[in-house]
Parts: sequence; C-alpha cells; structure tokens
Amino acid sequence: MRFVVIGGDAAGMSAASRARRKVTDLEVTVFEQTQDVSYSACGMPYNIAEPDRPIEDLVVRPAHVFRDKAGIDLRLGHRVTAIDRENKRVSGLTTDKAPFQADYDRLLIATGASPRVPDLPGFDRDGVLVLKSLEHGRQIKSYLAANEVRQVTLIGMGYIAMEMAEALRARGIGVAMVKPRPVLLPWMDGELSDMVWAELKTQGVEIHPGQAIESIQGKGQRLQVVCQDMVLDSDAVIVAVGVQPNNELAVQAGLELGADEAIAVDRSMLTSDPDIFSAGDCADAFHVVTGERTWVPLALRANRAGWAVADHLSGREVSIQGVAGTAVFKVFGLEVASTGLSALDAEKAGFSPRTATIETRNKAHGHPGASSIKVHMIGDADSGRLLGAQMVGNEGVAHRINAAAVALHTQMTVADFAQCDLAYAPPFGPVWDPLLTAANQLLKQL
Amino acid sequence: MRFVVIGGDAAGMSAASRARRKVTDLEVTVFEQTQDVSYSACGMPYNIAEPDRPIEDLVVRPAHVFRDKAGIDLRLGHRVTAIDRENKRVSGLTTDKAPFQADYDRLLIATGASPRVPDLPGFDRDGVLVLKSLEHGRQIKSYLAANEVRQVTLIGMGYIAMEMAEALRARGIGVAMVKPRPVLLPWMDGELSDMVWAELKTQGVEIHPGQAIESIQGKGQRLQVVCQDMVLDSDAVIVAVGVQPNNELAVQAGLELGADEAIAVDRSMLTSDPDIFSAGDCADAFHVVTGERTWVPLALRANRAGWAVADHLSGREVSIQGVAGTAVFKVFGLEVASTGLSALDAEKAGFSPRTATIETRNKAHGHPGASSIKVHMIGDADSGRLLGAQMVGNEGVAHRINAAAVALHTQMTVADFAQCDLAYAPPFGPVWDPLLTAANQLLKQL
Repeated sequence: MRFVVIGGDAAGMSAASRARRKVTDLEVTVFEQTQDVSYSACGMPYNIAEPDRPIEDLVVRPAHVFRDKAGIDLRLGHRVTAIDRENKRVSGLTTDKAPFQADYDRLLIATGASPRVPDLPGFDRDGVLVLKSLEHGRQIKSYLAANEVRQVTLIGMGYIAMEMAEALRARGIGVAMVKPRPVLLPWMDGELSDMVWAELKTQGVEIHPGQAIESIQGKGQRLQVVCQDMVLDSDAVIVAVGVQPNNELAVQAGLELGADEAIAVDRSMLTSDPDIFSAGDCADAFHVVTGERTWVPLALRANRAGWAVADHLSGREVSIQGVAGTAVFKVFGLEVASTGLSALDAEKAGFSPRTATIETRNKAHGHPGASSIKVHMIGDADSGRLLGAQMVGNEGVAHRINAAAVALHTQMTVADFAQCDLAYAPPFGPVWDPLLTAANQLLKQL
Repeated sequence: MRFVVIGGDAAGMSAASRARRKVTDLEVTVFEQTQDVSYSACGMPYNIAEPDRPIEDLVVRPAHVFRDKAGIDLRLGHRVTAIDRENKRVSGLTTDKAPFQADYDRLLIATGASPRVPDLPGFDRDGVLVLKSLEHGRQIKSYLAANEVRQVTLIGMGYIAMEMAEALRARGIGVAMVKPRPVLLPWMDGELSDMVWAELKTQGVEIHPGQAIESIQGKGQRLQVVCQDMVLDSDAVIVAVGVQPNNELAVQAGLELGADEAIAVDRSMLTSDPDIFSAGDCADAFHVVTGERTWVPLALRANRAGWAVADHLSGREVSIQGVAGTAVFKVFGLEVASTGLSALDAEKAGFSPRTATIETRNKAHGHPGASSIKVHMIGDADSGRLLGAQMVGNEGVAHRINAAAVALHTQMTVADFAQCDLAYAPPFGPVWDPLLTAANQLLKQL
C-alpha cells in the first residue's frame, strides 16, 4: 500500500514514522516543500534569544534518519500543488521547478498553518519578518546578526509575540508591541491579564493596544510602523498576529472545511474523502467541552493526530477525544496557562457561565519566597460542570493547569473537582491548591 | 446547639470556624491540650532549617482571633480524657490538673496522630526527639540552639525524615539515616527511589537501611544508636518512623475503628455514633481507587474533612469522595510525588497491575537547562483503569502529579488519560507531557 504525506512537520513525520513501524508492507513517501523536517518550532523564540546557538539545535531528527533508519522516502524541496482524487495522485514542483507526481492509496494532508500578514502597504519590505517555520527562525537570526538592530516593533500580542518580546529583550533589544484590538489578551480575565501587562512593563516592553496599523514605511535603513495615532521607529518588525490553516490543496480538491476554515476531519482524522486524512495545524478537531468543531493549532494535537492516522492505517480502530484547548506560555518571569472555555466562549457555546477569580500564594503559610498566583475559573450554572480555568503566576502554574484539563475531558462538575485530592507540601503551594480554592469560590456562584 | 470539638489542629479548627460561620445559633467549644492552634505543621522542617526564624512564623491564626473574631470558646491546655456517650458529655483535666466537663449535642473527635516511638531501651533519653506538633518543633529548635549538635541520627526514611535531613544539612549538621527495613522507599518503584538515594548521597547524607535498631545508649554528652551491625554516634536522635492515630478516646467510648486502627467514619465524617464526628489524622477515609477504607494522615484531607463536618451541621447533605493518596515532598533538589496505588497495593486490592517506567526531560528538545524526570505508572490489565502514578525529578513534578490524581477520582482508563490535552511549552516540558509518555508506554502492557 502506498501512503503519501504532504508536509514533513510534526503531524506528517509522526504519522509517517509510526505508520512505517506499525504497518510492515507500507510504502511511505513524504513531500516537504522546505529543507527542514522534525524540529521544535515552539523552541524558536528561546533559540533566537541566544545569538551563538545554532538554530539547528532545534532539529529533533535529521532527514537522513527518516530515510536510512525509518525507511521513509522523504523528498525535501517538493511542493505539492494539486491532488487528483479521482486518479488518487498528487502532483507538484520541486524547488528547481521540476514537476513530479505520485500515486497514493492513502493520503495525509499535513500542510500546517502560515502566519497571517495584514494586507497593508509596506508589509513586504526588508526587515519585516514572521515566525512559524524553522526557515523563518533562520531569517530572523540572520537579520539580527547582519544588522544593527536596537529596536523591534512586534505587531500582535499573542503568545508568540510575548515569547519574542522576551527573546529580544534578552539580547538587549528594545521592544514595542502594537495591535489594533484594545485588550491585551482578550480571552483572559482582566485581573489576570493585568499581571501580564505589569510584567511586560517591568521588563521594559512598550505596549500599545488599540492602535490600528496603517502601513510600514522605510526611512533610510529604519522602518516606521505607522499607526492610527503614532509612529513606531524600528530596525525590524516582527508580525505575529496569528496563523491560518494551509487549506489551499484541500479547497482545490473539494474537501470539506471545518472550524476556522481548517480542513474538517472526523475522530479518525479522515476528511470528507475516505482515502484522505488530515492532521496538524491545517486540520480541525472536536472540543471536549462543547463537543463542537474547533481549531487549535498546537504541537501536542499535531503529534497525536499524526499517530492516530498511523494507528488507523495499521487497522486499529481510532477515535481520538479531541482538545480541551490547554495552553501555556512563559513571558519573562510569569507562567500563563489556560484550558477549556473563557466565560465569553462559554456563553457563545450556549452555557450559563459563572466565574470566580482568586489569588493565593504559591507556597504554604510561613514558607519563605512565596509569590502570587491568580486563578480564574469558569463553571456552568445549569449543569454545574467545570468549563475552563486560567492561571497566572511566577511559578507553579504551567503544570497545575493539567489537573483542570483532565477534569474537562471527563466533563467533571465543579463540585467534584473541588473534592479532588491534589498534592500538598509547603515548598509547592498552600494546603488547598489554588485550583481547589478557585473551585470552592466558584461553587458559591453555581 | 452545643458543638464540642476535641483537638484544635487543622481538622478541629477548620470545622469549628466554618460551623460558626454557617450555623448562626451554634455554641462552639474547642478543647486543645497544647497551647497551639492553627499552624502549618508541614512547614516545620523548613523552619527548623533556619535558626533565626521563630517557629511562631508557622502560626496561621492565633488563638485570640478564633475567640474574638470567630466567637469560638477555645480552651487551651484542656485535655479531654473521657467521652460519656450516654449523657453526651466530655470530661478531662487542664494542664494544672483541674477537672472540667462539657455537655454536647454534637461532638467532633479531631485528636490527630502521634509519632510512633519504638519500645526499645534508651528512646526516652534527653536528645531523642520526635516531630509532629508545634511543641515538638520548638523542642528540636531549642535543643539545636542549646547544644553543640554536629551530627544527628534520623531513625526512619519517610518523607518527614527526608525533609529533616535537608533541614539539618542546611544548618551544616551531619546526618545519618537508619531503619530496619531493607528498602529506602518501599512503596516506590526502584528506578525512581534510586534517584532519591543518589540525591541523599550527593548531599552528604549517610543511609543505612536494613539495620535493626537495638537501643540508644548515652556516652558522655553523646548518644549512640546501637544497630544490628553498627553503632551511630550522634549529638541528637530524631525518631521519624511514622505516626499512629490518636484513637484512645474513641476506643474507650466504644466507637468502631477502621483502617489502620483509625476511627471509622462514613462519607459525612460520622462515626458509629450518629452524634459524634471524627476528622483529621485520627479518622480514616475511603480510597477513590479501591473504594475501601484507608488511612492517609495528610493536611488537605484534614481540612476538607473539617469543612465537611461543618457543612453537615449546617444541614447540607455531605458526601465527600475520599482520598487518592496524593502526596508530594521535596528532598534537597528533588521533587517526589505519588498518587493512587503502588503495584504492590494494587495487587493486594485485587487488581491485575501492569506498570511502565519512563524517563524524559523536563524541557523541550533543544531547550537549555533540562534535567531528567522519571515516571512510574500503574494500570489494571482487567479494566484498563489507571491505578496510580509516581514521579521524581528536579523540577516539574510537584504539580504534574495532580493530573493523574484527578484521573483517579473519575476512574479513568489509561487509554483515556493518554488522550488528555495537557499543556506544552518548551520551558516547561516535552510536547508529550511525561505523564502522557508513561501512559502511552503503559498502554502497551494492557
């Protein structure tokens, strides 16, 4: 059987490798348009923070290992441009414009997502950069090495923008963040996002929300980001306003789209064509809280979806649960985490959300060196179910959120969650874990 | 209504305070035999580590606050010696040997637990110390202040012994640990407990398991712990071989005992007498994995059980879920955590345990500063259920264990747990959380 994979990143390579291991007589071909496979994309901001570390440190497994050890026919510099579903064939062009084609029995579209770039004047200038692929990371490092960059404007205030703010400040570079929407982290409770705002200010980052961006102008070797009420001078601009699913091949092939124009897949990662899977940042998922389609382009889901495709090919019945939308990021000294729905999302999904926001210490009473943790928790007044949780603190946030995530997977009530036997020792938290204190407070609203 | 509480520690005071808040016409009397209420007992090793910090830093709420603000009739230095169930009356003696008595409508026995001390020659000598109450902590600090203590023998190797080893080493004191049983942490998988052993050795702690202890002898101002094959010279001895429930009053009153001779209680904290509750380290609990009675003398359970008693008094229907046996401790640079059953416990409880032990890094591929995390996970071959998890690592263990604890509360299968959407960012772990990697490995055994 011929299994063809379009895209050699997390979902594509994990599907290809696992399928080769699990299915003995499978011919696996992967077409990847860049020269990079299998790298830790999320690690790029931390790598960019260190001028002397090669970006290749992020490569988990080089191409020759997939070829020689795993026996995968891995074709780099191969861009698939069309899927012929009738003849079960893909075709495309190599980097040198040579045409190629390949027949498949089963196909996986794992084309990922691309950074969105506003369609405004000047966003194509030199020094206007984005960050998604390893090649982007290389470009940013090269640009910082080749130019005297003292000030960067970040367009966007999501987690990648914040991680880049930290990376640039670590290199002594001035950072201004700007975006059109008025709120720093719109999905986050205001009390918690105020902590993030304060941390950015403390670290010398300028923050300008609510500024419509009009253009990027060049002025000598300097760039100017022209906004509604201000002009931000900078030596480079990084655009981090989010990503969009690479759905072009699927659209051209007439496959159904799902949440946020991502490729619609069922719980086995099958698209509307029973011979074509999709996995990774280009595909959608089911949300464990709402049961509805959602699009969460994150690494764990991509890897897990890739595995599910391989399991399906090996004849195992596959039904993967979906996502809770669990996410964590670090912004300077703060850990920021969330899982499930915000109150606003919950209302949109038809729940009757109630919320509680609490503040506790991250160590027991009388234990030295404590700092603050804030928790915002969302529950449903009708069913009593836990719907989501958000946390911010200097320490003890990143892994705590997982307890709430597991609860969401089982549709647990807030009352039952409040009963859970969570760990306690003085160096690690108060007797009542911050999540339990939040649940106890939220119970009063339900 | 007259609510009488015997014992003013975590369970007793949390019941008394919450009951006073929730039930308007309640007369609440607490009899506490020591002079201390409401302190962080678990914080004592960390306080002992610092000679100049007063032990009173651990007091969460002083007695006068309970009296003046909460309106609780709090009697310190009052030791209850008998319960007359027929006449619903308790009687006892004050520190000055003055008799007292009090009538109750509802009674709470919250007498806690006491350190076990082997019935061997010399354990009553000066300089042989234990650690459970704040008074014990005071005694240890005084002893260390008044004597030139350069070497301490710790009898026992449980978490309190390990926390004390760390505290004493922080003060520059030599530490030897000794116990009769041959294995360091018998409930823990050997690969994981080897990490703990190595950490203790690295920190200069002598470890002597498998040494039957025969006596403690005095020699000049020095003590000698005489063991089967060796003699340990020391300036002080701390006995930390575990605790036993203070069940004497319950036994004398003819109440039923449960797990490990703790006072048997139902899910409302009621004893076999419908007017008498018990909560805290003297009472047993139900285990969420086995459904059977168990005894887990830990702080969160004590506080939660105290609250449940108050809720019951306020007329609310109470049924608390029980414990998963979740615990965490720090030993020098290591975090050690567990929840649920060990493989041995699982076998005793009638399950068909299978296990997996994995090692991962605590940061993403290519992220600087990573260290090792080991996870041992236990599942049931018959039902597929997750039964327990154990973790050891330098960082990222203490809060991660909670995800497995929540799963145990819902009797989740390993397959479902492996599907959970746990948080990922490079500074905090690999894409597949260590618990997910362990679950994926364990699935192969089920």
